[in-house]
Amino acid sequence: MSLIVHGAGYSTCTQRILTTLCELDVEDWKLEFVDMLKGVHKSPEHLAMQPFGQIPVLKDGDLTLFESRAVSRYLAEKFEGQGTALLGKDSKERALVNQWWEVESQNFNPPAASIVYEVVFTSMFGQKCNDEVVAQQVAKLEKVLDVYEAHLAKSKYLAGDSFTLADLSHLPYAQMLNTAAGKAELFTSRPHVSAWWTDISSRPSFQKVLGMNEFTKGQ
Amino acid sequence: MSLIVHGAGYSTCTQRILTTLCELDVEDWKLEFVDMLKGVHKSPEHLAMQPFGQIPVLKDGDLTLFESRAVSRYLAEKFEGQGTALLGKDSKERALVNQWWEVESQNFNPPAASIVYEVVFTSMFGQKCNDEVVAQQVAKLEKVLDVYEAHLAKSKYLAGDSFTLADLSHLPYAQMLNTAAGKAELFTSRPHVSAWWTDISSRPSFQKVLGMNEFTKGQ
Repeated sequence: MSLIVHGAGYSTCTQRILTTLCELDVEDWKLEFVDMLKGVHKSPEHLAMQPFGQIPVLKDGDLTLFESRAVSRYLAEKFEGQGTALLGKDSKERALVNQWWEVESQNFNPPAASIVYEVVFTSMFGQKCNDEVVAQQVAKLEKVLDVYEAHLAKSKYLAGDSFTLADLSHLPYAQMLNTAAGKAELFTSRPHVSAWWTDISSRPSFQKVLGMNEFTKGQ
Repeated sequence: MSLIVHGAGYSTCTQRILTTLCELDVEDWKLEFVDMLKGVHKSPEHLAMQPFGQIPVLKDGDLTLFESRAVSRYLAEKFEGQGTALLGKDSKERALVNQWWEVESQNFNPPAASIVYEVVFTSMFGQKCNDEVVAQQVAKLEKVLDVYEAHLAKSKYLAGDSFTLADLSHLPYAQMLNTAAGKAELFTSRPHVSAWWTDISSRPSFQKVLGMNEFTKGQ
């Protein structure tokens, strides 16, 4: 097995990498489950691969790579020409893929991750959801999605006519917002965002990754 | 003039782009000052280029590109082979550049930007510095820099033996932490981080960009 992803099927960042592998039609990979509830991500073996004690990590031969967006980009470059053209077709589309990829990272992800953390994960760690933080971050995300709505009225996908890494990168946290965090209205109240979300979330790649969850949790 | 950067010399994200241009030995560019104190970044003309109402924005012919990291990457790809090899020499180094580039974006930047905002910018906007937030974010950044310290003990630069985009991306906020925010000790207390910071911050590219500040503010 040449590619090994150390992560967990339920982890949003792991899902980003697995969806990338599926879009690229890469079949020669394996998910090695890291049991965070048992603290495996803080073990010396894991810290030797990922010094921040986080998941996921990719092993590709003698290359150890972490940060899910860096791994997704690495895979999209390594397997360029195979499966979906995730990086854009020419230098201009490539630039726009990078732009919306960074918009996800800098504008969408911070409020989305904060809402999901408060609403979904605090209870798992015996903490209380901070409703004030949720309200602040929802207001922030509303403004971001207003820009998406205006943009997606003119463009089928974020970087143009084709599904790319920029759209893909939104999938895991948008899925959490639409389901476990109970914030689907953020999407359904904006017609173009809603159509985009229905389209990208129903892609076989992401559906396949969501279907892996139970299996990988129970490994 | 083929490349126009709409931004401000004192803006950290503008500095990221200008430093990239200097490292790449690109000379055919111009900084178009966006006066945020006069609200120019929220004007219809600016919003047509940058729908989030932020700076900077690059205009390259008919291409309009925002998000400073996306612009830096675009420039590094466009001028690859000229000036400093910012993207890495082979696919493995390229992957590690991407990894540490994302570490900056996801681990270093959030606490760094939060500290700088509280300590430096709140007073400019007639707000009060929240000392509790500063203490929390300093603690977070300490942990991140501990990982850097261990890593930089084994590696001269973040992605290997050469200065790359991964190091460059840290310059603007690290500079603010070391000067206006009064947090130099975060760096000086860690010998390898300190040596790295002294090295990268003294590069002619960044010194040139810092020297532009007064001029571009007063344009």
